[in-house]
Amino acid sequence: MHLHLFEKQVYTSRRAALKKAMGSGVLLLMGNEESSMNYKDNCYPFRQDSSFLYYFGLDVPMLAAIIDIDNNTETIFGNELTLDEIIWTGPLPSVKDMAAMVGIDQTQPYAQVQQALQKAQTAGRTVHILPPYRPENQLKLSAWLQWPPEQLQQKASLPFIKAVIAQRAHKEACEVAELEKAVSISADMHLAALQYTRPGMKEYEIAAKVHEAAQAAGATLSYPIILTINGGVLHNHAHHNTIREGQMLLVDAGAENNMHYAGDLTRTFPVGKQFTARQREIYEVVLNAMNHAISLLKPGITYKEVHTQACEKLVEGLVGVNLMKGNPQEAVAAGAHTLFFQCGLGHMMGMDVHDMEDLGEQHVGYGDGMVKSKEFGWKSLRLARALEPGFVFTIEPGVYIIPEQIDTWKAENKLDAFINYSTLESYRDFSGIRIEDNFLVTDTGAHKLGKYLPKTLAEIEALRAW
Amino acid sequence: MHLHLFEKQVYTSRRAALKKAMGSGVLLLMGNEESSMNYKDNCYPFRQDSSFLYYFGLDVPMLAAIIDIDNNTETIFGNELTLDEIIWTGPLPSVKDMAAMVGIDQTQPYAQVQQALQKAQTAGRTVHILPPYRPENQLKLSAWLQWPPEQLQQKASLPFIKAVIAQRAHKEACEVAELEKAVSISADMHLAALQYTRPGMKEYEIAAKVHEAAQAAGATLSYPIILTINGGVLHNHAHHNTIREGQMLLVDAGAENNMHYAGDLTRTFPVGKQFTARQREIYEVVLNAMNHAISLLKPGITYKEVHTQACEKLVEGLVGVNLMKGNPQEAVAAGAHTLFFQCGLGHMMGMDVHDMEDLGEQHVGYGDGMVKSKEFGWKSLRLARALEPGFVFTIEPGVYIIPEQIDTWKAENKLDAFINYSTLESYRDFSGIRIEDNFLVTDTGAHKLGKYLPKTLAEIEALRAW
Repeated sequence: MHLHLFEKQVYTSRRAALKKAMGSGVLLLMGNEESSMNYKDNCYPFRQDSSFLYYFGLDVPMLAAIIDIDNNTETIFGNELTLDEIIWTGPLPSVKDMAAMVGIDQTQPYAQVQQALQKAQTAGRTVHILPPYRPENQLKLSAWLQWPPEQLQQKASLPFIKAVIAQRAHKEACEVAELEKAVSISADMHLAALQYTRPGMKEYEIAAKVHEAAQAAGATLSYPIILTINGGVLHNHAHHNTIREGQMLLVDAGAENNMHYAGDLTRTFPVGKQFTARQREIYEVVLNAMNHAISLLKPGITYKEVHTQACEKLVEGLVGVNLMKGNPQEAVAAGAHTLFFQCGLGHMMGMDVHDMEDLGEQHVGYGDGMVKSKEFGWKSLRLARALEPGFVFTIEPGVYIIPEQIDTWKAENKLDAFINYSTLESYRDFSGIRIEDNFLVTDTGAHKLGKYLPKTLAEIEALRAW
Repeated sequence: MHLHLFEKQVYTSRRAALKKAMGSGVLLLMGNEESSMNYKDNCYPFRQDSSFLYYFGLDVPMLAAIIDIDNNTETIFGNELTLDEIIWTGPLPSVKDMAAMVGIDQTQPYAQVQQALQKAQTAGRTVHILPPYRPENQLKLSAWLQWPPEQLQQKASLPFIKAVIAQRAHKEACEVAELEKAVSISADMHLAALQYTRPGMKEYEIAAKVHEAAQAAGATLSYPIILTINGGVLHNHAHHNTIREGQMLLVDAGAENNMHYAGDLTRTFPVGKQFTARQREIYEVVLNAMNHAISLLKPGITYKEVHTQACEKLVEGLVGVNLMKGNPQEAVAAGAHTLFFQCGLGHMMGMDVHDMEDLGEQHVGYGDGMVKSKEFGWKSLRLARALEPGFVFTIEPGVYIIPEQIDTWKAENKLDAFINYSTLESYRDFSGIRIEDNFLVTDTGAHKLGKYLPKTLAEIEALRAW
């Protein structure tokens, strides 16, 4: 076992700030367990809970922590290994030693969590929990707190959720350093794909190479690789196609480094050496929208405004290639762009690639002043709030041609003041283009994270020469 | 979505045999859901339940099936995709079309499972379930059947468990063909490691290459890769060490092919070009035990007998190098070999790398006539029963030097009639050697599955020449 940790003081400071923000109460933070694949002991790679990592750092299964603000105690609950377990898994520092590494001197066996919680409940004290997203934690919380599993989401503590988001949304310098590393590894994953891909390969052969680039750097995947000639499908995880000259390959992949910070990059490139004329045109439309969005980034502007202006820039480009018509502002106001760009421009990123999504998109991406729309397209905008220094997020515009959606819209002549359905017909098999980089908001603007990954037509084609 | 299926008749025949074996009742088979990593929608690669795959073939999340034997109905429960979902995940055949591919003509929405089960319960009929190993299925079964989560293991149906094991333990010809493929891909994974490894690399760089070899063949991992210079730790999943000349690398890795059949191979080889003299000696001890075990394989012999004779052969070799002393049969009877070989010689293999482990090791590996020992070493023998044609399993002897165990035993002079503790002292940092191949019992003997993977000292060193 090899623990990767920040300095002890990073964790003690974070917990001190959390206690100050909450004022009083009993805070429970659940670590994760191993997750079973096809039987109990055949497990997926372990992934610790991100909020647990944020406050306690320990990347070890079957831990929990209680911060009792009023009694000023912090306790880690976990079990020591037996000799039998050491034979199978090797020696591990004791729970006491691990806890000490992150500034905690009280430890107890895991089974004591229930007693500690019930003691607090009996004394009429408030036990604050975060919303559980793992079913094993739902089962445990339900048993420990005597709350039915289906009520756990509403039992989650709103003040606790907000306090955690307020901290984790503002990346510290030590976190930014890790994000830089994760995004640079992510860039290397994309360079591997750009250099390795040849017509006639299977998508999975290239995905294997991209995954290798992450693992050979001591990282893992921050999310399942999207690598597809069907880029029009937004989250396509199948990799069985043979790729052919004339097609484009969309690769959306990112690393999670050994401190569990994520990168999330997308490039779209020709399977052959060059883009076709039509592909070049749409690529430029997407890239122009991306560059416009990046130019707007600074503290104070809302991400919703950045998204809206990027959409208008996309429409402007699509009007230029005769797929849309009319006034771009009016088209976006009417939602016409969502036939080509069905999702949001990006999302918060940190230890989770969609950072803190378990704590609720409304709280993370909108906050108190804004409410998420239920309209198609807009409902997929994960981030909308005003930008603050320390925020880290993706910028990822795209154009996606989805035949099923075109057919549905065309059948009702939907928004045909803005859409040239006749021209669109010949684009049915165009698929999709997305370009994505990751940004940190600074005091005066924004900073692109990680090493530079080529993104212009000329840069991409230069990498496709062989 | 790309479904990999056997011929329809494979599934209808399996279900017919199951119904015949059970006679009457309502059989529930749960498919698996997606498993969340760090928030609900960021998921591990989907793994369908193996018994669901065996009877229904459909490698799609959120399905369940009910076989009502008395009313002679078979129903698949699942939900159709909405247009919104198609935009994100791409089109998929309808549940009705998928069910038809495996010979089932009745389908219902997923939410109807509960009603179907409660109707059966109300009518006083027996609902047979298999033991759930995923917490989400525990939550669902508990809600559907009104059984507390902690009682579900004992509520699982013993006749159902035994009927499924009786079928799945005997591999059909179409399954053997898939196992041959999976083991051959596994051999290629090991060849990649044997050819790529050089002193100075990190373990994770080689693990990345092994994983790539699986994925580039359209496969996944049947279990997490063990790849370590600390081979004395039996299930070591850390890969952070830099490897050095003079050390050995133990690689235990296998593929799961696109029909979800597993391979499970181990090789141990020098980080440099050649084994040291001491490494050669112990390697030969392990290989001799393996070859002896293989020579015994045929219908009728118990795997326990094969294990016992392999242990005796190991002790014979260890006496030869002065690590043990005395009579090998007596040493094994006393358990002295378990200081060097703490586990079992192997396990059933099929769709699960430890085949059907979710159904219970006692039923799978021992059956009605035998009971698993609770003694150290013997309690880790997963397979003991008499071999029958169609059984597939691993043979994986090893010698593991575990300092913590030596210290514990030596402190009490445990079994010192058989163990030369003084000689052993200089082996403390030896680590471990394991060699593993996969076998099918035939009518007259046994057949090694998959392409040949070098295993003699000379063959291994030939691959380490550079």
